[in-house]
Amino acid sequence: MQRVRQRKPQEFDRVLSSMCTEPHPRAHEAAVEFLATNPGDPATYQTVADLETEAVDQLGEIAGLDDAYGYIASGGTEANIQAVHAARNLADGADTAGGDAASDPNIVAPTSVHFSVTKAAEMLGVELRTVPVDDDYRADLDAVAAAVDDDTLLVIGVAGSTEYGRVDPIPAMADIAHDADARMHVDASWGGFILPFTDYEWSFADAPIDSMAIDPHKFGQAPVPAGGLLARERETVDALAVDTPYLETTSQATLTGTRSGAGVAGAVAAMDELWPAGYRQQYREQQANADFLADEFAARGIKVVEPTLPLVTASLSPATFEALRDEEWRIARTADGDLRIVCMPHVTRAALEAFLTDLDRVRS
Amino acid sequence: MQRVRQRKPQEFDRVLSSMCTEPHPRAHEAAVEFLATNPGDPATYQTVADLETEAVDQLGEIAGLDDAYGYIASGGTEANIQAVHAARNLADGADTAGGDAASDPNIVAPTSVHFSVTKAAEMLGVELRTVPVDDDYRADLDAVAAAVDDDTLLVIGVAGSTEYGRVDPIPAMADIAHDADARMHVDASWGGFILPFTDYEWSFADAPIDSMAIDPHKFGQAPVPAGGLLARERETVDALAVDTPYLETTSQATLTGTRSGAGVAGAVAAMDELWPAGYRQQYREQQANADFLADEFAARGIKVVEPTLPLVTASLSPATFEALRDEEWRIARTADGDLRIVCMPHVTRAALEAFLTDLDRVRS
Repeated sequence: MQRVRQRKPQEFDRVLSSMCTEPHPRAHEAAVEFLATNPGDPATYQTVADLETEAVDQLGEIAGLDDAYGYIASGGTEANIQAVHAARNLADGADTAGGDAASDPNIVAPTSVHFSVTKAAEMLGVELRTVPVDDDYRADLDAVAAAVDDDTLLVIGVAGSTEYGRVDPIPAMADIAHDADARMHVDASWGGFILPFTDYEWSFADAPIDSMAIDPHKFGQAPVPAGGLLARERETVDALAVDTPYLETTSQATLTGTRSGAGVAGAVAAMDELWPAGYRQQYREQQANADFLADEFAARGIKVVEPTLPLVTASLSPATFEALRDEEWRIARTADGDLRIVCMPHVTRAALEAFLTDLDRVRS
Repeated sequence: MQRVRQRKPQEFDRVLSSMCTEPHPRAHEAAVEFLATNPGDPATYQTVADLETEAVDQLGEIAGLDDAYGYIASGGTEANIQAVHAARNLADGADTAGGDAASDPNIVAPTSVHFSVTKAAEMLGVELRTVPVDDDYRADLDAVAAAVDDDTLLVIGVAGSTEYGRVDPIPAMADIAHDADARMHVDASWGGFILPFTDYEWSFADAPIDSMAIDPHKFGQAPVPAGGLLARERETVDALAVDTPYLETTSQATLTGTRSGAGVAGAVAAMDELWPAGYRQQYREQQANADFLADEFAARGIKVVEPTLPLVTASLSPATFEALRDEEWRIARTADGDLRIVCMPHVTRAALEAFLTDLDRVRS
């Protein structure tokens, strides 16, 4: 296997653009141990299937939900797709039961919603109505209320947005959704493991939300692939289930079939090790890093968006951005072209200082 | 992480029901090396993105396709979903271009098709028309022809079916599909790494098929998750793409977002090591194991389906089946209740002999 052996993965010391990170050493160890397991076939791979149950319980604890339903997904994209999927199927079920189901069903989300929701809507044949955000990049409640109608299946709020790290007004959005007999989903894929240490209202305990995406493989420090779909009621998962003829289990609610036991075991190991003290410490360190970086940008006269979570967005010229990419900094841009730096657990203060040194040198 | 450390994954020596297997040692090593990478973000994780390109090329070589398009999916389920997805979207595209698109689109597959196709049809809003198989468990061509009509988007043939290891008449099915302006997909998720060593007509070289599912994480001896979606034309992948605002790439055709670099690197390592000689050897050994097991069943008066690929299906009473499960044998049943044993690379002759010894003891 020359081709693989000759090459090494990227080092993380210059990765400032990713919402993934280096797994915790214990999570890495567990993932390696369970590499050849498949929680998608629980009758064959029982131990890892048990671990998945524990992972869902633990995610529920983090997200303020006793008796959580759900599963370990391939990531936030799958969890978001399945939340839309469940909402669509539950509405269809209401239809066949004699209800007044939507002929042209829609879902409502702010423009800040992750593009996985675009995938979901396109696949599932529902209209995605995106509504504006306010001056602080959070879903505009008036716009949400105006977009929701009798054909709305689902309202989606973001708890830690991809581009600005913002948390939508979840409780108010849930009220709007439920007043219209729609469901409420929260995408906390990125934010779920840091928001418990903030004052934000984002969780199942804070609002009557129906489902959530919360990813162990982001701030949870689990290895990829380990996303999480959580639901308050069993019906959400039941609405996703298909029969499984040849497995010694009766149905499967996941989008994928064979799944990664490494992700499941790694997620359990990381949460066992880090919840809550380790995650709290990580949040504080990375929020401090983000605040430091934002201050440094501001001191240089660079326009910066206040990092209310550990994600810094700032205006750089395209030439400067490219020059930093040429220095091997792994950085990315928002849709509006702003530099976006995600302070994940692998990001050190020293790395940010080195980045600033390079910035000062190449800036144009 | 007591909970993980206290428990170990199943041993493979009694796993006779899985279509997954122990990864090749080189694949395991590569997966561990690339555990913290994400081919879903190629501008950040460039090395693993390059490896994915090589994996697709290599899969194309195995499946008889130069200049293959596609990607490393989470598994055969995703690859099958995306094949249906692409067929639906391409037909919709033909519609907006003024063509005569289906109002009630359908896909046609034998009853032996994997349940992932049920998931795909349900999600994507297309009708799944399943047609009977013949006396040898292969798609009945007359039934396929009768089911296909102007609203058919896609015909799916199975190359190595889940329950009986059968290969559908792929070239004839492709003719039927194309005569109706439908596409032709082959599910070789399980069979793809052994069929090159048989006389079956199953590949892109054997028939004008449009897409294929072929999984490195089954007979390819790669770690989970490593499936493969292959397509003859670029339009198939383009039909799946959504815009990706915050990544330094323009679009993403995968169902999931963040993806496992371990699966990609493991797949490349396994194929480098094993294609073609290692896979040929593995096929021969496991076909011999399947033939041995079938002969042993027959000698005991147990009705057995001839294993034309390394998968043995035989009639056992429910009591005997349960007694063998109680002996910790990880075995599964077909929808008709037949015992189904999959001779994957980890299955040794000694394990089969031990299984037969237990069978003789518990049989009722």
